[in-house]
Amino acid sequence: MAIGESKWADLPPIKGVKLGVIGAGIKYANRNDVGVILLDEGATVAGVFTQNSFAAAPVHICRAHLEKSKSIRALITNSGNANACTGEKGFENALRSCELVAGVIGAKAEQVLPFSTGVIGQDLPIEKIAAVIPSVCEKADEASWFDFAKCIMTTDTRPKGATKTIEWQGETITINGVSKGSGMINPNMATMLAYVATDAKVAADVLQHLINEAAYQSFNRITIDGDTSTNDSCVLMASGASTAQALNRIDDPLYPVLSAAIVSVFQSLAKEIVLDGEGATKFVEVNVQNGQSNQECLDVAYAIAHSPLIKTALFASDPNWGRIVCAIGNAGLQDFDASKIKVWLDDVLIVENGGRAASYKEEDGQAVFNKEFITIRVDLARGSAAEYLWTTDLSHEYIRINAEYRS
Amino acid sequence: MAIGESKWADLPPIKGVKLGVIGAGIKYANRNDVGVILLDEGATVAGVFTQNSFAAAPVHICRAHLEKSKSIRALITNSGNANACTGEKGFENALRSCELVAGVIGAKAEQVLPFSTGVIGQDLPIEKIAAVIPSVCEKADEASWFDFAKCIMTTDTRPKGATKTIEWQGETITINGVSKGSGMINPNMATMLAYVATDAKVAADVLQHLINEAAYQSFNRITIDGDTSTNDSCVLMASGASTAQALNRIDDPLYPVLSAAIVSVFQSLAKEIVLDGEGATKFVEVNVQNGQSNQECLDVAYAIAHSPLIKTALFASDPNWGRIVCAIGNAGLQDFDASKIKVWLDDVLIVENGGRAASYKEEDGQAVFNKEFITIRVDLARGSAAEYLWTTDLSHEYIRINAEYRS
Repeated sequence: MAIGESKWADLPPIKGVKLGVIGAGIKYANRNDVGVILLDEGATVAGVFTQNSFAAAPVHICRAHLEKSKSIRALITNSGNANACTGEKGFENALRSCELVAGVIGAKAEQVLPFSTGVIGQDLPIEKIAAVIPSVCEKADEASWFDFAKCIMTTDTRPKGATKTIEWQGETITINGVSKGSGMINPNMATMLAYVATDAKVAADVLQHLINEAAYQSFNRITIDGDTSTNDSCVLMASGASTAQALNRIDDPLYPVLSAAIVSVFQSLAKEIVLDGEGATKFVEVNVQNGQSNQECLDVAYAIAHSPLIKTALFASDPNWGRIVCAIGNAGLQDFDASKIKVWLDDVLIVENGGRAASYKEEDGQAVFNKEFITIRVDLARGSAAEYLWTTDLSHEYIRINAEYRS
Repeated sequence: MAIGESKWADLPPIKGVKLGVIGAGIKYANRNDVGVILLDEGATVAGVFTQNSFAAAPVHICRAHLEKSKSIRALITNSGNANACTGEKGFENALRSCELVAGVIGAKAEQVLPFSTGVIGQDLPIEKIAAVIPSVCEKADEASWFDFAKCIMTTDTRPKGATKTIEWQGETITINGVSKGSGMINPNMATMLAYVATDAKVAADVLQHLINEAAYQSFNRITIDGDTSTNDSCVLMASGASTAQALNRIDDPLYPVLSAAIVSVFQSLAKEIVLDGEGATKFVEVNVQNGQSNQECLDVAYAIAHSPLIKTALFASDPNWGRIVCAIGNAGLQDFDASKIKVWLDDVLIVENGGRAASYKEEDGQAVFNKEFITIRVDLARGSAAEYLWTTDLSHEYIRINAEYRS
């Protein structure tokens, strides 16, 4: 089950970025489950990673390698096994995969970033992966974005990609991205992963700034079941192969232009994850306005987005506004005046003066809730901050997927 | 659906506390939906109420009347309508019900506490209630605890009661309690309510102390879906009719004895609510030990108790320990060393050294998860604080109940 049509936009090549995939039989036979991304010399790379205290071995190694090496040359990813909660052995296996790739391409292990997604608590079958590393590096080319997007899927029902091209002073910059994930955390914590590459030439510190901003406005705005995986990782790569000017400073006029394009790719990838949410039948934007701070807007938005009562009402297409009001009341806001709040479903005002809006008609709320794409908007009327989240409903299918995953 | 056998323990009379029930046809015909509790002069009453910012009209009036009046003489409750999110009209209706009861028993309106539970956002049918108030007050007697427990039910599948008797210096003190609720919040926020009465003679400030402690160890330890209703209310009444000594000070030797008995009644009532949780098939105690503070123990316990992934694994009887580890990692603890944590399912050690315990066998975890009553125990190994929560699994039935409630 997924919301809307599957729409794969063909991703053009990004010069200096090669992708390869291969089947290693990690969990299933006959599917590609190992992928590499190879970067030409001179590329810069930045990442953001899960805040989970039980971060998996590959996450720890990614952080260490990004710290140590100024020149990342390859990424290696597998699906079917998360290499999480695997103790010391997990670290050794992830590091070994880096050494093997480094050996093939003539780099150091610290110039390789490892990623894993899939079942947790099982040792990574490193020999199976070792056996295919030479071939998958050999096969890598600039055309294989679709294959790579498919290779990283776990419970995803469709590959997720986005692309954007901008012109800057007569030169072209392209940005491609692929992602996977169909819960903020998949059944066995199998992770959100996103790989975004551009041919822009971007200084490493500026690239980190760009990814922080873009992740804040995209992957940090989605929630399906409120959990964060041990393996969540997002990487932004800049090959520098474009003939456009280099971006070395945040106050360069190119910065906001490139940033907007990157944010747009990140947001598309994040929305794709929500649309493919486990058992999801509705895409819901929760929009909280006029709060005293961004944090209190987020508190209210999360209280709504995480309420099982609201999520089941969305699944049932039941515009049960009382549950929304109750969730707002649960967000823990200080000195809160319930009589000032307003709530809309799309453009239908449902709550004002501490109760049901005088103008509200049940059939208007019903018409909104019958749709696949719904906005719940809350006006806190006590400040000027605003925040948003993207989430889904909670369906029988979610229970089925998550109750039956291992059986 | 509910866990375990329904076991109504006959509640003995509490001298000085009379209960009456009657049918007013608020939502359904042919069921008792209005109840009163009448207290002899000299009784003391204390309450704790929802922290929800959208607290319903009766909750506001309860707080105000407890503040204003040192002598509460009656409580009036209805099911079928929560009188929540009903604006000014809601206040007028709740206050009117107090005035009507006061008129019948010869007291002031501020000596009456109102409670409502049921559908929200609909005006309270005050005329229907007004019509039955004289008769329900007339009918009240000391024997009707069971009828009262049934009268306050909404989606509850069974009435909930508990009783305890203690001896003190040759005299007897009795404590009775009834509660309702089958989600921390019911489908339309229809509330947790609890009424506990004792014939002990207790000073008002001491009674408030007793209820705060007891609620902290009972109703504040249960969570079904993470929401708190607009109407949650809990009241402790002391008629003073017992011949035992009066309790006027917290440092009186009677205090810990009476407190332990009251806590035990409160805990029974709280557990009954969890056992009758919407769609619940498992009763789960989450026990977090050796944290740096009670707050961080609670953070970890809530991260586990609220994780839909753990709740669905419990429903599926799938000892998916990775989900538990992941939830612990999400609790936001600072300077957290994942390798120090230990996790048990009942007495089966499943996690140590950052991964699956060497001694763990899947069949042992499976044997625990096949049971109806399960303890998940976490040792944080970084302090001496401990906390616990009681919760349930998340089943298809929960989705069905909450998705279909209004249709």
